[in-house]
Amino acid sequence: MQVGETQWSAPERKIANNALEIACQRETDALIREVRKGVGELNAIEDLWRLHDFLSARRHYIDGKYDDSEAGIVFVLAGLVKEGWLSMDELDGLDEAKLAKITALNRFF
Amino acid sequence: MQVGETQWSAPERKIANNALEIACQRETDALIREVRKGVGELNAIEDLWRLHDFLSARRHYIDGKYDDSEAGIVFVLAGLVKEGWLSMDELDGLDEAKLAKITALNRFF
Repeated sequence: MQVGETQWSAPERKIANNALEIACQRETDALIREVRKGVGELNAIEDLWRLHDFLSARRHYIDGKYDDSEAGIVFVLAGLVKEGWLSMDELDGLDEAKLAKITALNRFF
Repeated sequence: MQVGETQWSAPERKIANNALEIACQRETDALIREVRKGVGELNAIEDLWRLHDFLSARRHYIDGKYDDSEAGIVFVLAGLVKEGWLSMDELDGLDEAKLAKITALNRFF
């Protein structure tokens, strides 16, 4: 499966970039809800540093995740669908081959 | 001023350690209030990473600050008084020489 060599039209790039933005905002909103919940339980200095460790880990994970290069975007989209941040119908407009690759990749994750 | 060579009795160490604990809890409480306030304004991923940067800086600062070695504790106590986390009367029970050193160091900070 040569996902790295997939060609992207301009409208497809736009669909993919929009999907990444939507997914990133959903993931951010969930993270903000989690932080707000955790902040209600802060009492000691160790609680603050636990929150700091949690944010460090999430930042490292999210920073590395939203790769929008043409070589990586199919993997990223597949991962986001798998995690529930995107649904396949939000990728409508991509060609059949890309959609089939995303569906197939989902089985590997 | 040879603060590094100061001798500490067991009751004085207890007073100093209690003072450090009190100051650390006050500084922690203030930090928690600041984080709670900031969390109310979280909307975007950049806001989360700004909170993370803020906690990184505070952690680095606080971790290095509460040095309870006999060589360092006079400096630490003086700094905490200067910053308002401790008052001089909370150091009652330390000998006059130590109190004088703490007061004198305050003028250097």
